[in-house]
Amino acid sequence: MSIGEKTYHEDLPKVTQDEILELLKTKNYIAARKRLLLLDDVETAELITEIENVLGIDIAIVLFRMLRKDQAAEVFSRLSPEDQTGIITRIADHEIKTIINEMDFDDMIDVLEELPANIVDRILEKSSPAERQLINTFLNYPASSAGSLMTPSYVTLQQGWTVAQALKHIKAVGMDSETVYTCYVKDKGRRLLGVVSLRDLVTKEPDEPISDFMVEDVVFVNVLDDREEVSEVFKRYEYFAIPVVDNEKRLVGIITFDDILKAIEEETTEDIERMAGVIGTDDKGYFETSILRQVRNRLPWLIILMASAMLTGLVIAHFELQLALIPSLIIYLPLLMGTGGNAGSQSATLIIRGLALGEVAPKNVLKVLWRELRIALLSALVLSALNMAKILLLDGQPLEIAITVCSAQIIVVVIAKSLGGMLPLLAKKVGIDPALMAGPLIASLVDTFTCFVYLSLSIVILSLF
Amino acid sequence: MSIGEKTYHEDLPKVTQDEILELLKTKNYIAARKRLLLLDDVETAELITEIENVLGIDIAIVLFRMLRKDQAAEVFSRLSPEDQTGIITRIADHEIKTIINEMDFDDMIDVLEELPANIVDRILEKSSPAERQLINTFLNYPASSAGSLMTPSYVTLQQGWTVAQALKHIKAVGMDSETVYTCYVKDKGRRLLGVVSLRDLVTKEPDEPISDFMVEDVVFVNVLDDREEVSEVFKRYEYFAIPVVDNEKRLVGIITFDDILKAIEEETTEDIERMAGVIGTDDKGYFETSILRQVRNRLPWLIILMASAMLTGLVIAHFELQLALIPSLIIYLPLLMGTGGNAGSQSATLIIRGLALGEVAPKNVLKVLWRELRIALLSALVLSALNMAKILLLDGQPLEIAITVCSAQIIVVVIAKSLGGMLPLLAKKVGIDPALMAGPLIASLVDTFTCFVYLSLSIVILSLF
Repeated sequence: MSIGEKTYHEDLPKVTQDEILELLKTKNYIAARKRLLLLDDVETAELITEIENVLGIDIAIVLFRMLRKDQAAEVFSRLSPEDQTGIITRIADHEIKTIINEMDFDDMIDVLEELPANIVDRILEKSSPAERQLINTFLNYPASSAGSLMTPSYVTLQQGWTVAQALKHIKAVGMDSETVYTCYVKDKGRRLLGVVSLRDLVTKEPDEPISDFMVEDVVFVNVLDDREEVSEVFKRYEYFAIPVVDNEKRLVGIITFDDILKAIEEETTEDIERMAGVIGTDDKGYFETSILRQVRNRLPWLIILMASAMLTGLVIAHFELQLALIPSLIIYLPLLMGTGGNAGSQSATLIIRGLALGEVAPKNVLKVLWRELRIALLSALVLSALNMAKILLLDGQPLEIAITVCSAQIIVVVIAKSLGGMLPLLAKKVGIDPALMAGPLIASLVDTFTCFVYLSLSIVILSLF
Repeated sequence: MSIGEKTYHEDLPKVTQDEILELLKTKNYIAARKRLLLLDDVETAELITEIENVLGIDIAIVLFRMLRKDQAAEVFSRLSPEDQTGIITRIADHEIKTIINEMDFDDMIDVLEELPANIVDRILEKSSPAERQLINTFLNYPASSAGSLMTPSYVTLQQGWTVAQALKHIKAVGMDSETVYTCYVKDKGRRLLGVVSLRDLVTKEPDEPISDFMVEDVVFVNVLDDREEVSEVFKRYEYFAIPVVDNEKRLVGIITFDDILKAIEEETTEDIERMAGVIGTDDKGYFETSILRQVRNRLPWLIILMASAMLTGLVIAHFELQLALIPSLIIYLPLLMGTGGNAGSQSATLIIRGLALGEVAPKNVLKVLWRELRIALLSALVLSALNMAKILLLDGQPLEIAITVCSAQIIVVVIAKSLGGMLPLLAKKVGIDPALMAGPLIASLVDTFTCFVYLSLSIVILSLF
């Protein structure tokens, strides 16, 4: 959503990006700042990104420096890694320190993960040794692990405390924690004993011991679990925050729902891109990925699929004589290949999504096959009836050609939908990402089958007439 | 994730689905219940679904009746609409009443939305008139609107209260609200004045007036906003809950993050399915959608795309003479159509996802075109170099054929990537869902272009040799 398209702050004077842009162009900085401070952090970050695009990083920094100290950190954490690097390399050390100190721990880790190593070193120089060690531990978790999503700033309560003691503690530390709504109780070995919700604390009597209502059967994830598993847990349990433990079951951090929203979005993007044969490992946006990187992400599958299409060419070469005898056969080849590819792509997509949502599992392979066969047969009958009418009435082809094309179509759709249904399940079973078995691959495989089935069939059927 | 595959409750004895299944089969109900009560609500709902699949609805109901009263409502709300209907139609009225009374308001609305009208009536009969009216209002919001996601059970605070008064009120009503972590302050006309977070309340002094720290610049959505807009707001602001107002800006409900997680998932599924040419309007899972419904969801696009493929057939028919003269041309047609389709599909997918995430906008059309042109040219050069080597060295074709195929490939990839990049943006601009401009449509369009470009080019180039 671009700025100004819709504002959810109806009571404020409408501040449009264009307005601030104009003020900056005419160097009317005081008026620009006044307008700027009316925006919230999200809008401000979007504006700075826009300004960087239109007027360059130096003007963006002018704008960034206009922000209040407390706002600067929040806005900074919402900028793209490119803009963050641009700003960090151009501002003074004391400014960097202020931003880093004001940032939430998990936001800071997110920022540091994306920045070049020399910039990270420059930032780490400004931290205390203890802080530096903690940051380094967090930076070492694999990029897509629970560890890289979590924050160490949560509220810890003592098992023996009463409600009043717990609330007093929360009052003291609450403002520095990522969340106060779920609090954690640990034993001496830092192992997680249970969780206490703030809702319980504010509805119970002050002298009640928290152990009375502490939930001990806690859902947690391991620090090395993949973010896909973590989002699965969030979706299943709809919790606000989930604790993260290490291999010794010690509590090392928590993941809150806002971090998982981003993770789910990135996971889905990766899935969707893979389904179209785009293999990128970074989470950058379309415009943030360089042209060369885009080529590198897209070319491998194009080459693989080209090789597969060469196979289809071989099949056609094999039937060259038949095609020379009855040239009109070739007219229906695109139709058959297209229908097959699309039919298979539909099935593959539904199964891949079903796998991602946990609705379908590899063990369902026969159930899927049986469904797809019936769907394929019904669809194919309708398609080939339409096709039959068109070939006979519009194209004026002889019956034997119509029969050849339409029976090939039925076979192709059935093969395509079966392959589309099964390949993602088999891929999942052997540990390959099912998303790779989507449209492009299925379509290529089906193309080869199509040519073979269609042209073989033509020899058989046409010899009968 | 299927049950038993991974448990996040390491301290509990492992209860597997198979174990309980076995106990039910041997009618050892007491042991089954003991095991059952060790599972959490999510696992229990999954088990009941599984039991219904394997042993039928009657045994599933036996299991359902074993649950504690407070658990039954929570588990019920997590079942599929089919299982819910199955249970509702088979249990006694007083049991229905207990379940409905125990359920959260928004869960109840979700359940009622999916049930057949006669069942809904049966449930509504058991509510008070006031309750019935509220339920009916909620049921009348469009299925994908903010209204259908929200809950009316939030905490309202009085503007003049102190922290202590607010906390006292929360203590009294907190357990019946969807959330207590964000509380709302309204004026006499029920218009939203501001929000107060529980975090602020527990960290401030008891005698401080809440108006001192109430946030007045509130982000809200309209009750008729589409859930896609609502999830956009959640992703931008990362709030835990967002207030919903009607056209007179009166607060009518709130949406919490757990509801939006489901909505985002459903939106994404719809997008992904549309990208493969599957047009379903329901949010049912793969196995929950009937065969006929599946055919109806998939057939329209297959027919449209078949019609488009017929156009490609016409182009080929037009060049029949040329193909008869040089039969080997046909061998490279699948390769060119495949490469074009895949190249276009990649671009379309990236742009469609970029639009969904707000990274790309229709106004970027020239910027996108310029990027895609460069990516296309680079990719095409690599692909056609490989192709050239293969045609000359492996296939032993004459140079003029190789030049024809490879120059056609470059043109086709450039056309495909440009179309793939632009069509989704144009669709968005004129109000068509960009997801429909994905792989299948692009591939069909590109097929027609491919045949035309390739065969025209062959006439020109081959006449030169």
